[in-house]
Parts: sequence; structure tokens; C-alpha cells
Amino acid sequence: MTILTLLTDFGTEDEYVGVMKGIILSIAPDVRLVDLSHQIPPQDVRRAAFLLMSAVPYFPPDTVHLAVVDPGVGTARRPLAIRTPAGTFVGPDNGLFSWVLERVPGWTAVEIREPAYQLPLASSTFQGRDIFAPAAAHLAAGVPLEKLGPRAEDLVWLPPPRLEISDFAAEGEVLYADRFGNLVTSIGYLQREKDAMVLAPAFGPRQGDWRLFSARAAGVVVGNVKLRGIRQTYGEAAVGELLALVGSSGFLEIAVRQGSAAAALGAVPGTPVTLIFRRNRG
Amino acid sequence: MTILTLLTDFGTEDEYVGVMKGIILSIAPDVRLVDLSHQIPPQDVRRAAFLLMSAVPYFPPDTVHLAVVDPGVGTARRPLAIRTPAGTFVGPDNGLFSWVLERVPGWTAVEIREPAYQLPLASSTFQGRDIFAPAAAHLAAGVPLEKLGPRAEDLVWLPPPRLEISDFAAEGEVLYADRFGNLVTSIGYLQREKDAMVLAPAFGPRQGDWRLFSARAAGVVVGNVKLRGIRQTYGEAAVGELLALVGSSGFLEIAVRQGSAAAALGAVPGTPVTLIFRRNRG
Amino acid sequence: MTILTLLTDFGTEDEYVGVMKGIILSIAPDVRLVDLSHQIPPQDVRRAAFLLMSAVPYFPPDTVHLAVVDPGVGTARRPLAIRTPAGTFVGPDNGLFSWVLERVPGWTAVEIREPAYQLPLASSTFQGRDIFAPAAAHLAAGVPLEKLGPRAEDLVWLPPPRLEISDFAAEGEVLYADRFGNLVTSIGYLQREKDAMVLAPAFGPRQGDWRLFSARAAGVVVGNVKLRGIRQTYGEAAVGELLALVGSSGFLEIAVRQGSAAAALGAVPGTPVTLIFRRNRG
Repeated sequence: MTILTLLTDFGTEDEYVGVMKGIILSIAPDVRLVDLSHQIPPQDVRRAAFLLMSAVPYFPPDTVHLAVVDPGVGTARRPLAIRTPAGTFVGPDNGLFSWVLERVPGWTAVEIREPAYQLPLASSTFQGRDIFAPAAAHLAAGVPLEKLGPRAEDLVWLPPPRLEISDFAAEGEVLYADRFGNLVTSIGYLQREKDAMVLAPAFGPRQGDWRLFSARAAGVVVGNVKLRGIRQTYGEAAVGELLALVGSSGFLEIAVRQGSAAAALGAVPGTPVTLIFRRNRG
Repeated sequence: MTILTLLTDFGTEDEYVGVMKGIILSIAPDVRLVDLSHQIPPQDVRRAAFLLMSAVPYFPPDTVHLAVVDPGVGTARRPLAIRTPAGTFVGPDNGLFSWVLERVPGWTAVEIREPAYQLPLASSTFQGRDIFAPAAAHLAAGVPLEKLGPRAEDLVWLPPPRLEISDFAAEGEVLYADRFGNLVTSIGYLQREKDAMVLAPAFGPRQGDWRLFSARAAGVVVGNVKLRGIRQTYGEAAVGELLALVGSSGFLEIAVRQGSAAAALGAVPGTPVTLIFRRNRG
Repeated sequence: MTILTLLTDFGTEDEYVGVMKGIILSIAPDVRLVDLSHQIPPQDVRRAAFLLMSAVPYFPPDTVHLAVVDPGVGTARRPLAIRTPAGTFVGPDNGLFSWVLERVPGWTAVEIREPAYQLPLASSTFQGRDIFAPAAAHLAAGVPLEKLGPRAEDLVWLPPPRLEISDFAAEGEVLYADRFGNLVTSIGYLQREKDAMVLAPAFGPRQGDWRLFSARAAGVVVGNVKLRGIRQTYGEAAVGELLALVGSSGFLEIAVRQGSAAAALGAVPGTPVTLIFRRNRG
């Protein structure tokens, strides 16, 4: 039974998600549906792209990922289906998949055009229902990608989050606050072995380059707050204390133990964050 | 594998939805569960009725739709099971299904009474768990409708949303704002072929009657705002601009491209909306 | 097909729940996933423990219940798997399961330690993904509990909600407000046969002891409001009226018909509630 995930900004108040599932199960009755999220802030393609990038590695490679966050619905932007070694992706050509595609060895994209794999009366306001859901279901049911339409080149690509790395520091930004108020930043991927930390840039021109430094000696600056050291767990901080640690996807996070760092710092997406590899001697 | 959908105002904070699913899967282990929504505003039967009407056509006709939005729980209102060519419905006799039933060629309703298809100790406060979930599960598992209880006649019927159509205009109302702040109105069903639009009344006494007019020449009035023309897609408006267009279920919608019309206009359910077929010459 | 339920405080905005499901379905592709709730207030172990206690009886006994509400993630608290006649439980050793365990005749707990049943690189910030989800999936797939690690004794236990019972009254507290604003209290279990009510203490030292009284003659005091009688259904009150009744899990609830008792009374978790068995004669 193939898994088909859904990621949208549709919320769960309206019939939109249910309708897509009705269509999918009508076409591919055996598919396993998994909601990644329907709470992406409306039209926030970057939030969705980052979520996909974090979630995809935990699904089997024959999974079909349907993602519809689409400020350009009804404009000329192409509907895409993309096959990769990490999964198959269906959604609009607006950059949604670029951070996933940057992490796979290769991929093939087609523009969804073949009417046989769409609803008969495609609207221009709900292509999630009329184009993307049927295409994803047909792919999950075994239809070859190439049947859906002609090869698509020159996909739209998202600019990467800010991440500039010198010998002394990495300059990044807050990407978003998660449900707990943890501030997830663009500074990653980080890995740790006891006190030794490695930063291997996840984004930007120096991708592949890396830095080795001491977790305890490092500092993190966000707004006018400076935090000493990168902790291993929330449990190393006092309840209510601000701390920096490596989040579950390998990115630097600012958290408050059993509290909200977003509320404590007033930080928002785009707020600059600096990871200092070595403390100043001054 | 039969599909069983769930539509409630129970929210997802409490155990209510999970408990219904536990019961359903205990009775019908192979059923496919699909959440339509659990975020219906508490006791808003009309919102639920409209959502059902919009969603049902996208599900296979052997689907069982369980809907529990029930301001009268524990009163004498009857629990119903209804078989139609478009699906089987289970829920309270409060009008929830009337807009679906108006669109099918015929139906059979029974009052759920047979104790063998209920939980042994039915409470008077959570009939979704004790009566409706078991009934829906038994129907999905193949129990004939007639086994559940005696034939039910004279179902409670919802008054239709406002929709009055003259030769010059259609007068309707805002039904609700969707997650994006799009204002969904009662003015439908609308279909378009290039500039030619047809309005075939979805509600009210003139159902079946229709009007043909020019999409570009039409006007839409909501509050003290007047919009010219009915657009085909969001992309025809500038970012932040108010526009009128046909929503995904065939009803007139007022939207702001990449913004919220509900916030821009301060409109709420019941706010009058007028679709003028021809512009005034004055 | 085994059912696997999920209960967390992760919300549905982020990828956390989806990622757990990807892992679970990778290990146990045939399992039936049911969300109990992901909207537990962050780190509110007591709310989750009460929800579990209310929901578990409605699931088949071979269900695996995965619950991750875990203020102590990354500290020394043990990850547990627990087999009971009412279901199998997986989650942190912080009391989450104590109110379920108090209601089953016996149980066996192990500490999850065996690396073969965890993700290869277990993080210290997302053990729901790295430890609990894989363990629950392996159990659902048929791995014997004992394979996961050594026997665990002396589990952490939650202090019970307040419930003190004299011959004249039961003193309890508001546990939480549900989605409708109904105030769920610690005063239970209550059962009714016409006017005769029985209170069999669900918590505390007098568990097993019970009181018989008249529903109509009883009184309920919350804040400076006194309600007369315990009603059978919402329908016995006028729209907008405050009433006391027995909630769907057998606990005393304060409600407003078609309104919110939480809003009307300003009551919060911990607000004292008294059930008076007999009216004062004074």
C-alpha cells in the first residue's frame, strides 16, 4: 500500500482537504493517506518547503507527496509531478520542492497536462482538487510519471534562507517558531559528538564546506541576547531559561525550557541569528 | 473498503473524535476513515449542511457520511440514517442533510432505534459516540438500513440561504469566510464559458430557473463596495486587490488576492451581497 | 490490522506528527493510525492522562497507544512500553499512563532500551520520532514487549485530581474546559437510574467507596454560583442557562446550553467544585 502525504495551507475548517481525499480514494482506493500539515500559514511557500525537506527522509521512497501551497493558483505557473529517489512530488511550480530537490542525486519533472488524469471540469481556483489530487492518486496507483505530460525544465527555485559562514561565525535567520515557541533557524546542519560540533552548511554558496568547533565555547546571538554554549537537551537548562540547542532536523534552535522562546524574545521569521564558533577574548 | 467520513463540531482538542473512531474500527475494522472537518463552529448546523453539500459529490456513492453537529443532543429530535444514490448519511434530524437531499433524485430515511446497533449504555450527552458512530459503522460493514429502525418521514428541513433573483440582479448573503478569508456567498450555481455566465439558482423557490449574463459587465455589491466584473482567477487581480470570482463549489466568492476579504470588508455571515447582471446606465 | 493511536502536544502546524507516522508506516505498513489528539496544551501531562483514561475503553485491547507529552524530553526519565489487558502503551515515564493503569487489573512495563527498535541516530530533543514511534510500531507489528528492554518498576505516578467525599458532599475541581466550554470536573464516576444517582469515586483514597443520592435534590457549587439538581440532558435547560449534568465519561460537568460555561463562570483548571448530596435545610 503506497503512502500518499498531503501538505497544504488549506486549514481544516473547510471541505478542501476532505474533498481532495475523496478524489484520491476514488482513484486509488488502497493508498495510505498521511497528513503532513494543513496549517501552513496561507501562501507561505518557504515554510512548506522547509517542512517538506524535514519530513521527506522519514517516508519510504515510493511515497507520493502532494503539496499545495499556491499563491499563484490560476496563473500560468505550471502544475508539476517530479520523480526522485527520495519520493515522488506533485504540486505547483513555485519553488515548493526546491529544497528537497537540492538534497537528492537527481530527478525528473513533468508538467501535468494530460486531461485523462485530471477532473473533467478543471476550475481555475481549486487546482488542488482538479489537477493535483488526481495526478497524485494516479501516480500512487502506478501510472508512470511520463504519462502525465511533457518533460518540464527550468523549475522555479526558492532563494535559500540566509546562511553566511566565515571562520568565526555563521550568520543566519529565524525561519519560524514551532508550536512550542522554539525558534527554528537556518543555521544547520549541525551534528555533535560530545563537545565537538560540525556545521555543514545546509543552504547557500558554501554548501558542502564545513566548520568544526566546541559546543561549550560557542555563542549564539539573537537580538540583544547572547547565549553561551550549545546544550544537548532541554534538561540542561532551568525551567524558564533560554537555551540554544540542535533541533530535531539538525538546525540551531533557540528555546525556553517548558516555555516559549518566540514570546520571550519577540523574534519573528527573518530575525538575524549568529552562531559564534569562538568566544571573543575581549 | 468502504469510506466513512466524519463531520463534527467537536474540535480536535478532546477525545471525542478519537473515541468515535475507536468504536467505528471496533465494529468495521476495514473501513477507510476520512475527516471532512471537526472545526465546524459549535452547533452551526447551516455551515455543516453547506460543507456536506459541497463535499459529498467527490466521494464514491457507497460512502457513509457521519455528521454530528447537534444543538439538540439529548432532546427528542430523532437520530437518522438516510440512504441516497449519492451516499449514506447518519446524524441528527435537525436539517443537517437537507441541502444534500434536495440535490438527489430520491432517498430513504429510518429512525435509528434498534438497540443491537447502539452502544449498550447510551448516554444522553454524547450520542455521536453511543448512537451515531455505531450506526454508521454497522452500515459501512454492510448492515441494511432497514435493520436500524422504522421508516422516518417529515424530516426537519433547513430554511435555504437567501437567494432572490430578478431579471436584473441576484440578492444573496455571505455564508461564511473560509480559511483564506474568502467570503463564500449563497449566489450559485455559477458556470462560465469565456465571457458568458449562467446562474442556475442553487436555493430557493426559483431553483431550476436560470439567468445568462456577461461576466465582464456584471457587478457585485457587498456593503458599500462595488466590484466590476467577475474574474476567472485570483491572478487577474493585483496582490491585495478585492475581486469577485466563482468559487470551487460554483458559488460567488469575494476574495482579496493573497489577502483576506473578510478582514478587508468586515463582512460576516448574513451580510447582503448583490450580483448585478447588467450595469446601470446612469 | 492493529490500531495504533497517537496522543501528543505537538500540534498540527509542524512536521512532527507526520514524521512519526512516516516512521510507523515504514516499520508496520498495515497498522491503522488514529489521532486521539495533538492539541494537548504544551506539556500538560495531566490533561493527556485524563484524555487517555477516557478514550482507551473504546478501543480494542490489541490497540497500541502512543502518547508523547513530555516536559522532560532529554532528561533521565525512562522511555516506557507497558502491556495491559486494555491495550499497550508507549511513552515517557512521567505519569501519563497512571490513571489508565489504576483502572486495569494488572500490567507489565519495560524500559525501551534495545537499539534495534530505535532509529539509528537517536536525538535528545525528539524522542517521539527516535524512540517512541519506532517502539510503538514494532509492538504493533508483533514484536514481544520483552524484546524492547528490561522490566521497569516504580513508575512515576501522577497525584490524583482533588476529590474528597464526606457524607454530605464531594469536593472536587475543574479539570479543563472542553471545546464547547463545558467544564469537566474531577467528580466521578457518576451513574444515574431515574432520580437515583451513584457516585463511585474515580480518584483518591476512598476509591471503591460510594454514595447514593437524589439527582433532583443535589446541588452543585462552583465559584459563587449554586446550581440546583443534576440534569439528564442539555435539553432540560433553556438556551443560555447554566446546568450541571453527567458528562460522557461519567464525570460531573457544568455546561451552558448552546453556550460556554467556561466563559460564563470564568472557571479554570483547579477551580473548586462541590457536589452537595442533600440540600441544606437552613
